[in-house]
Amino acid sequence: MDGDTRRSLDPGEARQRIRDGHAGTTSGWCDGWAQANLLAVPREQAFDLMLFAQRNPKACPLLDVFDPGATGSGRFRGDITTDVPAYRVYEHGELVAEETDVSGRWREDLVAFLFGCSFSFERALTEAGIEMRHTAAGTTVPMYRTSLACESAGAFSSSMVVSMRGVPPHRVPDTVRVCARYPAVHGAPVHIGDPSVIGITDLETPDWGDTPALRAGDVPVFWACGVTPQAMVMESRPEFALAHAPGRMAITDIHESELVTP
Amino acid sequence: MDGDTRRSLDPGEARQRIRDGHAGTTSGWCDGWAQANLLAVPREQAFDLMLFAQRNPKACPLLDVFDPGATGSGRFRGDITTDVPAYRVYEHGELVAEETDVSGRWREDLVAFLFGCSFSFERALTEAGIEMRHTAAGTTVPMYRTSLACESAGAFSSSMVVSMRGVPPHRVPDTVRVCARYPAVHGAPVHIGDPSVIGITDLETPDWGDTPALRAGDVPVFWACGVTPQAMVMESRPEFALAHAPGRMAITDIHESELVTP
Repeated sequence: MDGDTRRSLDPGEARQRIRDGHAGTTSGWCDGWAQANLLAVPREQAFDLMLFAQRNPKACPLLDVFDPGATGSGRFRGDITTDVPAYRVYEHGELVAEETDVSGRWREDLVAFLFGCSFSFERALTEAGIEMRHTAAGTTVPMYRTSLACESAGAFSSSMVVSMRGVPPHRVPDTVRVCARYPAVHGAPVHIGDPSVIGITDLETPDWGDTPALRAGDVPVFWACGVTPQAMVMESRPEFALAHAPGRMAITDIHESELVTP
Repeated sequence: MDGDTRRSLDPGEARQRIRDGHAGTTSGWCDGWAQANLLAVPREQAFDLMLFAQRNPKACPLLDVFDPGATGSGRFRGDITTDVPAYRVYEHGELVAEETDVSGRWREDLVAFLFGCSFSFERALTEAGIEMRHTAAGTTVPMYRTSLACESAGAFSSSMVVSMRGVPPHRVPDTVRVCARYPAVHGAPVHIGDPSVIGITDLETPDWGDTPALRAGDVPVFWACGVTPQAMVMESRPEFALAHAPGRMAITDIHESELVTP
């Protein structure tokens, strides 16, 4: 399947391809449709997770919350246990498995949360003529733990995870302006410039993703990242959690045009 | 206390005046600070309420959710059981009391939710030169039950309650534009024009508030209203709930400048 085909799939077609065996990235799939970070936790922890999301909207922008036990919703008209290319399974905060189908692990008390994903604002930046260096280099965006604390909620606390993109200095204001209009997919950056200010000691060794593909003169720009909920699971150790594998997202039926602010 | 004094109070001063006995409206108080609709429900129902709010952001725009049992938060640095001018107490959906202090009724399992209030967008409209007819007439804005259904969540369902303001035809587009930038305080209108389209049979007899003060030629414009959570309580009958009395709001430490979209 070439790039044009991937881009022109509608969400239902894309989920069918994934059910049929696609286990890789969903980057570049389904132009115009929002992709999402997945985290499912037991009903017992669901209120705390919702509170955590409400208090940390940049890291955990809520796109949808399913009814307890439900594997789909009006905004995700598929099966969340089979229609994501790859899943991570956590028990007491430990990553215990990575699988392409978690229908056998689903429980009636699980509540699925979908959080906005940077793919949507990357598309907006690219359309504004701001190149995504990692896309041009064919790599995954670098992600870092930071010294920025999320606001705690009940059993849940975490430091914020950020993604980093290099931007030429004269496009930094445009970068902020364009992303700020998409609060549902992380919104405006959380930091611009010196990585040490937010506790990142070495830009060359990210905690997730690939080594940065910066060009000479690029300013490092940092966004709250949808990996934060998984960092929170690792830190707060709920009994059980399911998440997507990085870069292999849930493709929703939410059109990106719904996510832009007026 | 005259209008200028009321307007220039900061939130802490205003809450002190309320603790000291003010039991009337907070309309016109604390220029620039967001006021909020209050609903507190038992922890048992809190996830469903959060889900209801997430699915109905125009009627229930979440400004803050306190920790279970907490009577204050970083965004409301007062005591929610004493610092609202008047409260409504609901048992199994029935209004059983209206009181000016509910500290004796507070329970450790209650979770307080604050929802955005139309006062903030009314100020923005007034600044844009769009007169609030009810304010000019010294009355309360009229509110109506509608045939618009909110999306249900767990135990909670409700029809949407709307408020109505008359706007001269040439200012209707500006009205939409200005309000749309405040999604945290109900945002853009949900309907413009013929009331019967949303199930309102008689504009002259609102379900809450006063008879409308329309001028000749005014177009009726309808917004999702923060009374919706109370209508939901009446319809869904949770065991216990506390709410503010209409027009007597919780004055928060959230500045309105934080609520405007980029």
